[in-house]
Amino acid sequence: MHNQIHTIKKEKVLTGDRATGQLHLGHFVGSLQQRVALQNDYEQTILVADLQGLTDNGHNPHKVSSNILNVVADYLAVGIDPQKTTICLQSAIPALSELTMYYSNLVSVARLQRNPTVKNEIAGKSFGNSIPTGFLTYPISQAADITAFRATLIPVGDDQLPMIEQTNEIVRKLNHVAQDNILVECRPLLSKVPRLPSTDGKSKMSKSMGNCILLSSGAKDISKAVKSMYTDPNHLAVEDPGKVEGNVVFTYLDAFHPDLAYVNDLKIRYQKGGLGDGTTKKILEECLQETLMPIRERREKFISDKAQLIEILRIGSEKSQDESNQVLGSVKRAFGLNLFQ
Amino acid sequence: MHNQIHTIKKEKVLTGDRATGQLHLGHFVGSLQQRVALQNDYEQTILVADLQGLTDNGHNPHKVSSNILNVVADYLAVGIDPQKTTICLQSAIPALSELTMYYSNLVSVARLQRNPTVKNEIAGKSFGNSIPTGFLTYPISQAADITAFRATLIPVGDDQLPMIEQTNEIVRKLNHVAQDNILVECRPLLSKVPRLPSTDGKSKMSKSMGNCILLSSGAKDISKAVKSMYTDPNHLAVEDPGKVEGNVVFTYLDAFHPDLAYVNDLKIRYQKGGLGDGTTKKILEECLQETLMPIRERREKFISDKAQLIEILRIGSEKSQDESNQVLGSVKRAFGLNLFQ
Repeated sequence: MHNQIHTIKKEKVLTGDRATGQLHLGHFVGSLQQRVALQNDYEQTILVADLQGLTDNGHNPHKVSSNILNVVADYLAVGIDPQKTTICLQSAIPALSELTMYYSNLVSVARLQRNPTVKNEIAGKSFGNSIPTGFLTYPISQAADITAFRATLIPVGDDQLPMIEQTNEIVRKLNHVAQDNILVECRPLLSKVPRLPSTDGKSKMSKSMGNCILLSSGAKDISKAVKSMYTDPNHLAVEDPGKVEGNVVFTYLDAFHPDLAYVNDLKIRYQKGGLGDGTTKKILEECLQETLMPIRERREKFISDKAQLIEILRIGSEKSQDESNQVLGSVKRAFGLNLFQ
Repeated sequence: MHNQIHTIKKEKVLTGDRATGQLHLGHFVGSLQQRVALQNDYEQTILVADLQGLTDNGHNPHKVSSNILNVVADYLAVGIDPQKTTICLQSAIPALSELTMYYSNLVSVARLQRNPTVKNEIAGKSFGNSIPTGFLTYPISQAADITAFRATLIPVGDDQLPMIEQTNEIVRKLNHVAQDNILVECRPLLSKVPRLPSTDGKSKMSKSMGNCILLSSGAKDISKAVKSMYTDPNHLAVEDPGKVEGNVVFTYLDAFHPDLAYVNDLKIRYQKGGLGDGTTKKILEECLQETLMPIRERREKFISDKAQLIEILRIGSEKSQDESNQVLGSVKRAFGLNLFQ
């Protein structure tokens, strides 16, 4: 009885990932660890965003379809527990598409074109004059996702704040149409962890660029990735003083090494001169190997049982269908389209 | 057995109306009469397009919700038979929204902005800088409607040809992604009947402009509408020769009077001089009263039994759900998103 009451009062958190690739250390540091913690105190839903993945892969859908179960295996491997967290598949929840249709009547094209996140993303892609409609409009689809689960707390990076703003604008407009507070506004949960750089210290992490370490990366790949990591290009001899800022090895040590004092000590020695990159890389590699080995082993077990992964997604998606159909029902009533209800 | 085979081979026709108002004589002449004929030789679906109606009424949804049953009553009143024609409600068919999401990844924003029909419609509305996203993207939603029912014959006015083109582009792109002909292209069935002018001979027919005769218009309203009809402004005295071109009374006589030879004779007399507008209007009024009385009476009966109208829509929508879910299944398979199938 007590548990029941507690469950009802838990705040709802929604996160998700575009299913366009395996998850890597950037995801681990930036969001996965937080989700593992959140699932104990919040009612958490994680959306495998295959539809959103298609918005810039419409002509290459295999990139999405082949990664859905990879992403689920990644979740389970890091400790996301399907007993505590609902893991669901966007394309399996029709209400998300239906809500998108309703909301798209409340958002102008100009408003979408002003969205800073989408603007930046479009600039970073090679769409030319062919921006897919689904890509320009995906903030509406995200608003559908957030509101469909009545999520009020959305863990995001600060580059995603315009998405929260757009969602809340839609919520207010819909509530105005409904003359009732049928949807709830959400707020961001900003990550305190800085974004993890790619191993080359420059570009965005991407498997094809070979500048990231996947949760599934083998021991050899991890070793190779650490050895090629960007450090301080002016730190030529061991005796030379080295720079810690922008040195990817130290950024990763900050993110992954359990002993902060020890890392601090290493930094002082490196800055003075006398500590070689070979040594710092060896320390980092050991630490990453230790972090990733159990994750990789669990992941291998999960990915080898695809039927189980599908079943987890199916159960989560069915639960999500029920939740989102209720919200869709309210929205349809708001528009007076409840003839059959 | 013979009937069964015949049914399977029937070609599929899709038409529909935005549920934003009662249907009027323009609809009757332009499409309703044709649909009554088509239902005997084709497998016909009529979509009550409430979602499309919302694309420019998102903040005024009552205009849509209050007209859904009006439109269904109009259909039944003119002789569309729900035993022969499937009448369904767009918002009750989730696959239409889901297909729209998939297709929107295959159409660029620039392509939508070039659509001549939408461009003209936007120019005719007072959106200013706030074109609703749903309005710009509605050709994608129409493509979803057409393909969801595997419709191959689409009765349209020539202003709607760009919609057919857009649909077939999507069909080809989807089939290319699928590497299989899962969707079928459609072709237009162009109306041979010229567009009926409004009673003032100028603007588009609209209830608020008071320049159209509704299928539900009462005898007095019909009489008033005919009396105020635009004729030949230079035909001042009965003896003067009158112009038939652009004379709305004669256009309506062409459209509604059963005796073509008689109307032809009237035209000759009018052009010569000696036939007054009072007389031609009296002839037209008699003919319209005769046409509309039985329609109005049937309509009154239908609209008084809302439960029956809802039931007709419900049955048609359920049938349409089954059909469209099959197409959605194929499209999801084409994108590799058939984990649970």
